[in-house]
Amino acid sequence: MLDYLLTDDIILRALKEDMPMGDITTESTVAEDETSFARLIAKEDMVIAGLEVFCRVFILLDPNTYIERYADDGDKVNAGTIIMKLSGNSRAMLKAERTALNLLQRMSGIATATRKFADILEGTKTKIVDTRKTVPGLRYLDKMAVRMGGGTNHRFSLSDGVLIKDNHIRASGGITAAVKKARARIPHTVKIEVETESLEQVKEALSAGADIIMLDNMTPEAMEEAVLFINGRALTEASGNIAADNLAIVAKTGVDLISSGSLTHSVKAADISLRFE
Amino acid sequence: MLDYLLTDDIILRALKEDMPMGDITTESTVAEDETSFARLIAKEDMVIAGLEVFCRVFILLDPNTYIERYADDGDKVNAGTIIMKLSGNSRAMLKAERTALNLLQRMSGIATATRKFADILEGTKTKIVDTRKTVPGLRYLDKMAVRMGGGTNHRFSLSDGVLIKDNHIRASGGITAAVKKARARIPHTVKIEVETESLEQVKEALSAGADIIMLDNMTPEAMEEAVLFINGRALTEASGNIAADNLAIVAKTGVDLISSGSLTHSVKAADISLRFE
Amino acid sequence: MLDYLLTDDIILRALKEDMPMGDITTESTVAEDETSFARLIAKEDMVIAGLEVFCRVFILLDPNTYIERYADDGDKVNAGTIIMKLSGNSRAMLKAERTALNLLQRMSGIATATRKFADILEGTKTKIVDTRKTVPGLRYLDKMAVRMGGGTNHRFSLSDGVLIKDNHIRASGGITAAVKKARARIPHTVKIEVETESLEQVKEALSAGADIIMLDNMTPEAMEEAVLFINGRALTEASGNIAADNLAIVAKTGVDLISSGSLTHSVKAADISLRFE
Amino acid sequence: MLDYLLTDDIILRALKEDMPMGDITTESTVAEDETSFARLIAKEDMVIAGLEVFCRVFILLDPNTYIERYADDGDKVNAGTIIMKLSGNSRAMLKAERTALNLLQRMSGIATATRKFADILEGTKTKIVDTRKTVPGLRYLDKMAVRMGGGTNHRFSLSDGVLIKDNHIRASGGITAAVKKARARIPHTVKIEVETESLEQVKEALSAGADIIMLDNMTPEAMEEAVLFINGRALTEASGNIAADNLAIVAKTGVDLISSGSLTHSVKAADISLRFE
Amino acid sequence: MLDYLLTDDIILRALKEDMPMGDITTESTVAEDETSFARLIAKEDMVIAGLEVFCRVFILLDPNTYIERYADDGDKVNAGTIIMKLSGNSRAMLKAERTALNLLQRMSGIATATRKFADILEGTKTKIVDTRKTVPGLRYLDKMAVRMGGGTNHRFSLSDGVLIKDNHIRASGGITAAVKKARARIPHTVKIEVETESLEQVKEALSAGADIIMLDNMTPEAMEEAVLFINGRALTEASGNIAADNLAIVAKTGVDLISSGSLTHSVKAADISLRFE
Amino acid sequence: MLDYLLTDDIILRALKEDMPMGDITTESTVAEDETSFARLIAKEDMVIAGLEVFCRVFILLDPNTYIERYADDGDKVNAGTIIMKLSGNSRAMLKAERTALNLLQRMSGIATATRKFADILEGTKTKIVDTRKTVPGLRYLDKMAVRMGGGTNHRFSLSDGVLIKDNHIRASGGITAAVKKARARIPHTVKIEVETESLEQVKEALSAGADIIMLDNMTPEAMEEAVLFINGRALTEASGNIAADNLAIVAKTGVDLISSGSLTHSVKAADISLRFE
Repeated sequence: MLDYLLTDDIILRALKEDMPMGDITTESTVAEDETSFARLIAKEDMVIAGLEVFCRVFILLDPNTYIERYADDGDKVNAGTIIMKLSGNSRAMLKAERTALNLLQRMSGIATATRKFADILEGTKTKIVDTRKTVPGLRYLDKMAVRMGGGTNHRFSLSDGVLIKDNHIRASGGITAAVKKARARIPHTVKIEVETESLEQVKEALSAGADIIMLDNMTPEAMEEAVLFINGRALTEASGNIAADNLAIVAKTGVDLISSGSLTHSVKAADISLRFE
Repeated sequence: MLDYLLTDDIILRALKEDMPMGDITTESTVAEDETSFARLIAKEDMVIAGLEVFCRVFILLDPNTYIERYADDGDKVNAGTIIMKLSGNSRAMLKAERTALNLLQRMSGIATATRKFADILEGTKTKIVDTRKTVPGLRYLDKMAVRMGGGTNHRFSLSDGVLIKDNHIRASGGITAAVKKARARIPHTVKIEVETESLEQVKEALSAGADIIMLDNMTPEAMEEAVLFINGRALTEASGNIAADNLAIVAKTGVDLISSGSLTHSVKAADISLRFE
Repeated sequence: MLDYLLTDDIILRALKEDMPMGDITTESTVAEDETSFARLIAKEDMVIAGLEVFCRVFILLDPNTYIERYADDGDKVNAGTIIMKLSGNSRAMLKAERTALNLLQRMSGIATATRKFADILEGTKTKIVDTRKTVPGLRYLDKMAVRMGGGTNHRFSLSDGVLIKDNHIRASGGITAAVKKARARIPHTVKIEVETESLEQVKEALSAGADIIMLDNMTPEAMEEAVLFINGRALTEASGNIAADNLAIVAKTGVDLISSGSLTHSVKAADISLRFE
Repeated sequence: MLDYLLTDDIILRALKEDMPMGDITTESTVAEDETSFARLIAKEDMVIAGLEVFCRVFILLDPNTYIERYADDGDKVNAGTIIMKLSGNSRAMLKAERTALNLLQRMSGIATATRKFADILEGTKTKIVDTRKTVPGLRYLDKMAVRMGGGTNHRFSLSDGVLIKDNHIRASGGITAAVKKARARIPHTVKIEVETESLEQVKEALSAGADIIMLDNMTPEAMEEAVLFINGRALTEASGNIAADNLAIVAKTGVDLISSGSLTHSVKAADISLRFE
Repeated sequence: MLDYLLTDDIILRALKEDMPMGDITTESTVAEDETSFARLIAKEDMVIAGLEVFCRVFILLDPNTYIERYADDGDKVNAGTIIMKLSGNSRAMLKAERTALNLLQRMSGIATATRKFADILEGTKTKIVDTRKTVPGLRYLDKMAVRMGGGTNHRFSLSDGVLIKDNHIRASGGITAAVKKARARIPHTVKIEVETESLEQVKEALSAGADIIMLDNMTPEAMEEAVLFINGRALTEASGNIAADNLAIVAKTGVDLISSGSLTHSVKAADISLRFE
Repeated sequence: MLDYLLTDDIILRALKEDMPMGDITTESTVAEDETSFARLIAKEDMVIAGLEVFCRVFILLDPNTYIERYADDGDKVNAGTIIMKLSGNSRAMLKAERTALNLLQRMSGIATATRKFADILEGTKTKIVDTRKTVPGLRYLDKMAVRMGGGTNHRFSLSDGVLIKDNHIRASGGITAAVKKARARIPHTVKIEVETESLEQVKEALSAGADIIMLDNMTPEAMEEAVLFINGRALTEASGNIAADNLAIVAKTGVDLISSGSLTHSVKAADISLRFE
């Protein structure tokens, strides 16, 4: 069950963006009461994600759209798979098509990339997490897609997680002071993460009481040393230019989490087609 | 001059998404009246795009932000280039940073990819155009970035261009009927484009009075034949799985336009960094 | 089928404007569960337009409103005609009444005036078109009403049509330069129209490649000369103080289109009454 | 001083409606930093109204617009009068022009019509008032224009005035019961008006304690009789098909108020031109 | 029947405030298709108010919520009373719970306090009324709750009632001038209230034609004198630090109305519990 | 520095709620260009909170409002203290007054109550925290006021903290399963809190890895036993009917946090007056 509360704002804004004055092609060439039937087909191997959002676009334009689903969010599907069959008012379906596909293809692209990373990490203790490098306005869906691909989420926003970076450290007069100031002001339900670039900083962060320590742009060796030092007293997160090819190496350092902005900032849309018949 | 009217809705929504309850890290660790200074640096070669939007994010949070620009939207910049210097209230700058970069990196990614295509087409009569496969909510910026990269835009929405596809043709009882129905209803300021898959369809579209004929998923040979037949009586647009490697071949067919969804549906964010000092 | 997506924003805004704190008369004098029945009656001859919008207002306040329609949008109806019968919750109907009528009477007024013009043009090749002189916030409905009255639409907005006027010509250094600049930037799906005031300008616009040439405030003789010169190489649009009395004369010049701001900027509301029983 | 709080929603909505993706003509033909100068000229005799709203449109697009005003809202101006001079960024001015004029011409049209009625009533005790037959979304401005034309306002909405009509009377079991029920529920700051169609109803309304009695569609004789009977114990409002030609006759009956829907439902836009130079 | 038009904006805003990115506890621990059953129980004696709003929150998240009501808005219920039984989707119910209770408990708190005042005034001619000291954004519900508790409303906003205070009097050059200026500009449906602090002011207000005279911060003796002087020629409203303990004394002065800001500015939430089973 | 981004939505909504059609009293009685001067005075002892929000209301209506502040948010001030002096356009100030005071009095009421609790806890290790029992739409301000009064915040929303309650436990098949399910899905930056009602549950929550354990409605003895058992391995939060009179007793049990819904659900507005001169 989607929170339509959250998705409908996104969908309605997208539809209005795509037809501020209606769909002049469809309205002039397709009769008002015509019905269409279409198949949603994966055109490459992928992890499918966003099916409920996809359906919601059609439902919002024609509440009587009939839908049969053959796959679930998070499923791996092969090229050629029929994911879904839809039928409904032709005009509504033609108007919904592009917006629905734009959302589905992006979410499936994110899930597919995440799944690839998660599969590499399979068997290790390390999890792949996203970042705040999402598309403005779509964070709720981008982060949902990461979960559907087997990743977990980093904080949703600046309001619900503390990440003490360079500038915060400098402004506070050091890691210890920064952690203390944050602890005094934030909800007790929120953990504190500190970005570190050296073992020295790791040590200070740990004794300052950081719950999570980000190892930023460190070599695998430096990371391993840090993880050993921390020894479970805080969560560890590797960050900085980690891609499919060095993921396994980083995971071997024993970090708890590897974060990757590319999951959401550089999405390759999954190739999915809606075929009308 | 940006239309702030259009960008501010996007920016404010993004900022609220990123801090529904403020920035708890910054508010607890950085003093209210502190000033920061930062350099915006290209970390790879790129076409930069979205600088005005980027600046606007900072201005909306601190109207007194001071900005020095060393590059313009659409410029090719090399890795290492300092694009801009900013100074302003530290809290405002830290809150603006991620949203501003998310927008700038996406727009620059789009412009860079478009430029690459446009450069390949340099010297031919063919232009690269985008599609409606943009990110929901960001179409205005996505299409602006395409222009900054040297491409031109396809229609903005379903309201401002006619593209008669398969389904419209079937519903109308043929291309001729579809074009006639559309012409009768649409503003006279709008051209009619017909999607064709065979020379036969091309011929019907042309005699029906189509202003633009899309050659969809045709072989280069078929396209060439169509272009010759049309002979300037309509604009021609090649569409369907055209990428950097076959772009030159398609251009040789003499089509006026090549459209590519990948420019906006599969964006690789440009690597740009904001360094605080 | 209306795009409720587009109409509901208009209707809900109107209803909230009309009852920010509810309807204090109805809520105090009419029982919550009472049912009413009403007839919608034309009180003068008119072209009815906006029936779906009218119904939508009632449906939004009482989804169970029962409606029987005896006329369709665009129909000519005579004084005394019962257009529709409605029954539903009394409170909902009383609250909806004024907003629904305000929309319906305006749209029918527009359609009726347009029909009058279209009837005069009957048998000629000339069509009547609207302008951007619509009521702020209601353009979607104003333009819909023009179509229902037998007119066609000029561009919907500044984003979806090019109309090069005096100021654009001056700023660009001439018609030729202006057309060239516009062509380079706009979507290829959009036609270019140039406003001209003399035959000389007509000639320049035509050779610059204008798709549409507006003949602004010209005498019938000048228009005829221009139309002959253009000879089908561009669409022609007559503009400027054209009313019912000189419409036939202008049409005789052979222009393709006559645009009239008065269709939407000076609307006489059609006299329609909702009689409760 | 306008309440920008209230006008800006209207203006911004109008501007976005008129350029969802910018002004493609102006952006391609006019340089970004060009300045324009324009005169606002009355092209017929009128009461000018809406000048502050008009200016606000320009200010919202270019805060540095320079404005010199030669007339005030509510002034009678003759054809040919220069009302205002403006200079500012050319692009901003061209984008603002149509929206600003659409608002100004409508408001001036309303004020001019109202003034005509008010002048006829000059010297009598009768005042001209508007109704809720305003354009959906523009009630604040429509009612402001009525005041600028010398009229006064009827209630703003269903929330701030009680008007007991036929249906409320029937639903309550009579005028007396309806007035009593309303009085028990409404704020004590609100008057109660009762719509009557006969002297008998007038008498019941008066003894029920109505503050205002509407004489709906009565003959002048019947109205006069009612006014004499009421004798100042309640305000009296004449309503129903009262136009310029019978206004004086109705006023002679001694009613306090004459309401006219046509002031706002059937507006003839005042002819005003913005001439760039 | 609630005006969902008015309540839904409030409810949806509240729900989005409470879950900008969903309910992470419920979504991870409760299955999607689980059903829950709950009882709404009064935990102290109270006047219940806001039941329809409460239900609407659940309905908006699960349209199939099943509800059985054992009490109506405005009813006095005792501690232990089962007010309602609900069953519906578990996730929806858990997400709705807090928002629904926050609204219900506030409204019941207001109604309970109002009822207490109204009961004290029982048998007198004096009514208890609220003020504009409501919680920003919830005025519609706050004022509804006052009515459900047996009070009546003062004006809803600055737009629908005239209250001439000190500053208005000073700015106008006296009570008489202020009343005259207001009368000339406001809708004839609105009464004029004048705030007075002395018998002298009362006299001036009355002869200026005030419809309502506020006796502000006067002693009971001064109020009595004023009421006697006014003698029914205007409504009288006592205002200023009137609480449960001196209410009866003030009522004895014969004032028509006593207004109390505390009804809405200092609300003690009623203790109500939703027990899942 | 306030996030105007977050406050302006609240303030503008409040102002529009309070004057959908302007302030008819002020506009008719006060000249447009008049200036006023006012003092903001505490009329009882209090902790003042919300001064920046208060000022922002005036600034939004008159950007040139001149303000002198004599106290800061969070200060204890005595009855009679002049908190601030303001001068600006008279109309703007009169329109802003009520909305500004409504916000300030509520926030100061919350801060004052919180301060009272915080002072009782002074010298102990226990902190007072708020809940989600805030007024719908004002959570950002309600929680800000709690901090200004010396309290700290519980989670902001259902999206940024996990609180596993009875229903979640039952739906998951026990505390252990619930914690595990939540941990697998939530951001790693979020702590998990479990609501417990017995020592047995405390033990299970602790071994399941809860970060925070809520001791709900336990006796002081039971709490003490739980705190001893937990022994710093998780944060402890006492909850359920804790008021000023038993706060010290609960704090003695050694809990880290005491949460109180009454801080925000039952606010007594602080008595503050704006005196015009």
